[in-house]
Amino acid sequence: MIVSLLTDFGLSDEYAGLMKAVIYSINADAKVVDLSHHVPAHDVAAASFLLASSYPFFPPGTVHVAVVDPGVGTSRRILAAKHNGHIFLAPDNGLLTVPLSEGRTELMVSVSNQSYFLKEQSATFHGRDIFAPVAAYLTRGVALDKLGPPMQPGKMIQLPGVLASRRGKTIVGRVVAVDRFGNLVTNIPAGIVRDLVDETGGVSPSVAVDGTPVNGFYASYGQAPENTPFVLVGSRGTLEVAVRERSAARHLNVEAGAMVLVEAE
Amino acid sequence: MIVSLLTDFGLSDEYAGLMKAVIYSINADAKVVDLSHHVPAHDVAAASFLLASSYPFFPPGTVHVAVVDPGVGTSRRILAAKHNGHIFLAPDNGLLTVPLSEGRTELMVSVSNQSYFLKEQSATFHGRDIFAPVAAYLTRGVALDKLGPPMQPGKMIQLPGVLASRRGKTIVGRVVAVDRFGNLVTNIPAGIVRDLVDETGGVSPSVAVDGTPVNGFYASYGQAPENTPFVLVGSRGTLEVAVRERSAARHLNVEAGAMVLVEAE
Amino acid sequence: MIVSLLTDFGLSDEYAGLMKAVIYSINADAKVVDLSHHVPAHDVAAASFLLASSYPFFPPGTVHVAVVDPGVGTSRRILAAKHNGHIFLAPDNGLLTVPLSEGRTELMVSVSNQSYFLKEQSATFHGRDIFAPVAAYLTRGVALDKLGPPMQPGKMIQLPGVLASRRGKTIVGRVVAVDRFGNLVTNIPAGIVRDLVDETGGVSPSVAVDGTPVNGFYASYGQAPENTPFVLVGSRGTLEVAVRERSAARHLNVEAGAMVLVEAE
Repeated sequence: MIVSLLTDFGLSDEYAGLMKAVIYSINADAKVVDLSHHVPAHDVAAASFLLASSYPFFPPGTVHVAVVDPGVGTSRRILAAKHNGHIFLAPDNGLLTVPLSEGRTELMVSVSNQSYFLKEQSATFHGRDIFAPVAAYLTRGVALDKLGPPMQPGKMIQLPGVLASRRGKTIVGRVVAVDRFGNLVTNIPAGIVRDLVDETGGVSPSVAVDGTPVNGFYASYGQAPENTPFVLVGSRGTLEVAVRERSAARHLNVEAGAMVLVEAE
Repeated sequence: MIVSLLTDFGLSDEYAGLMKAVIYSINADAKVVDLSHHVPAHDVAAASFLLASSYPFFPPGTVHVAVVDPGVGTSRRILAAKHNGHIFLAPDNGLLTVPLSEGRTELMVSVSNQSYFLKEQSATFHGRDIFAPVAAYLTRGVALDKLGPPMQPGKMIQLPGVLASRRGKTIVGRVVAVDRFGNLVTNIPAGIVRDLVDETGGVSPSVAVDGTPVNGFYASYGQAPENTPFVLVGSRGTLEVAVRERSAARHLNVEAGAMVLVEAE
Repeated sequence: MIVSLLTDFGLSDEYAGLMKAVIYSINADAKVVDLSHHVPAHDVAAASFLLASSYPFFPPGTVHVAVVDPGVGTSRRILAAKHNGHIFLAPDNGLLTVPLSEGRTELMVSVSNQSYFLKEQSATFHGRDIFAPVAAYLTRGVALDKLGPPMQPGKMIQLPGVLASRRGKTIVGRVVAVDRFGNLVTNIPAGIVRDLVDETGGVSPSVAVDGTPVNGFYASYGQAPENTPFVLVGSRGTLEVAVRERSAARHLNVEAGAMVLVEAE
């Protein structure tokens, strides 16, 4: 059984390693996959988008542990949910907003049963003391409803306004990640752009990042001209702004959070 | 059987990957966990503290391989020790000072039996050529005393003065790590602070980092006020100086090594 | 069965994690080892050298997946090769030049059989959509010749002039990697330097990096004087320029790509 880990812990410290130590202590047969430990510190929205586009590539039944948790040690809840055949474990701070925005949530519980936690829990590292052991017990077949009382998914805390939206002939979105290559990953699904194009007779819409127009659509990095920002459908299935073999973030002097406008003429 | 790896190799180069290649070549059933590869280069004391607070979270019998080894290729010894039910493998340069400072060392040997090394050994990468294969053979059940002659634990090289100390109403310690969030991890165990508080009638002591006073104790990050350095008990069980959702290291302009004073009024 | 991963994806993003998700989805018993994900972006030559010196430390039969692939989504081929008992999977962009420069290529195919790809393939992330699933099927025992038509190894794209060369009493090479410690890893095999020394009566040759002479040969870091660049045989079996417990790259103000000259007097 696979456990995927998504955190903002980085890899410099012992934090990710200790989560694995605890998981393997409880289930020596578990298989832990680091999805990423480099979510920008405390950036719950970035984690939410990353998890939503990534989890379908894991086998059904995978336990996805996502810990971006500035409220650790306060009274914030911890959620466990079965959704689209996968299991999610995360603080109730909006992190599950995007992964649970499509599909069917079969069950959600508020995790409170201390018999699945480490005996001593620090106030600062629930990743090690609560999330890791609970995930390990889930891979050993403990049922979700043993972890705590059921909860209406509608009562989960939601991140407001994080999804891209369309008004008339304009789509408004944001850069939600700048990847290692400097590509600007947006939250604008390719599908809603295709719909807009279809409705407006197939004319390619204009795209602007933080007010700067971007030149045209290409199918892949290698087909684009050099030194020119362009748009393509990235591996998350959303629009991506890139510069061939260069950093679009540096070229456009743009960071995560920048507004992206798609407008049909 | 688990092998934990703690090094200053970083993850940019092939070094950590090659240690795993060698381990799995010898024992395909081993399970390697990266504890951290980002110990500051050559910082034996930082590795010693990290290992001491981390190893108890692994299952008993885990082989902990720690390679921060500026003396690689010289005549420095390599130690293998069984301590508190765990196995440690490290250069004899003080790295095991803190992990072995508490509990019982059942056996220590000076690793010299070349039949458990790779056939050819470079002078620069004993992590791959000696530590990894020896660790793999240990997970296959090779007894510690096959690795070389026994050694008195008292003859192991010790890092001098690395542990926090108390004189009267003052505890003197240091920042031993700055984590990804900029939290200042100290070597001052929460227990000796509690003792000091108890003896002085429950009054909260003052804390200063490099001479700068720090404001009060809080139970968790989320309970502290914003933009104010505070003290909490961190996940290592030692004092930690933090700023809520900010970097205490930047706020206080402090690096690892800074002196931390705890004084009862 | 082991899959080794070598990419320029970094670890900040989800890319490496998703390759593992796909591999384990297809073969839950595979064992994935991260060789490195920090090849400098688009640096095919650096990946080629790293892979050549690393793969022999893995068990025979390992599937080595190397994705440094600026041409992703264009018509560049993908190669699978059986060579020296290992299996290699990489874009046909020169990446396999160095690993395949020594030994015997038993079989090479051009990978084109879509039944071993993910059903939907993005134009930007063949690591997840093609390389990962093909590698997973190889570990499940799918024969190389099922992946596509055989290809003459001589038709593979070669990186020109990347190997060190000797003319008379001079060896010309380059810095091909700067490691975490600032050591300058060259492409000059220790063997051809030894040959030169033998032929010239055992006199130690002079070494210069980007025109700056380097002081003498030492067997290990710990035996060299402080603050002085020196030469040693590094863990790749090639010359390495280092400064004891310091960064040679900073000391000499040199980057990857710098020319290295070895001259017999």
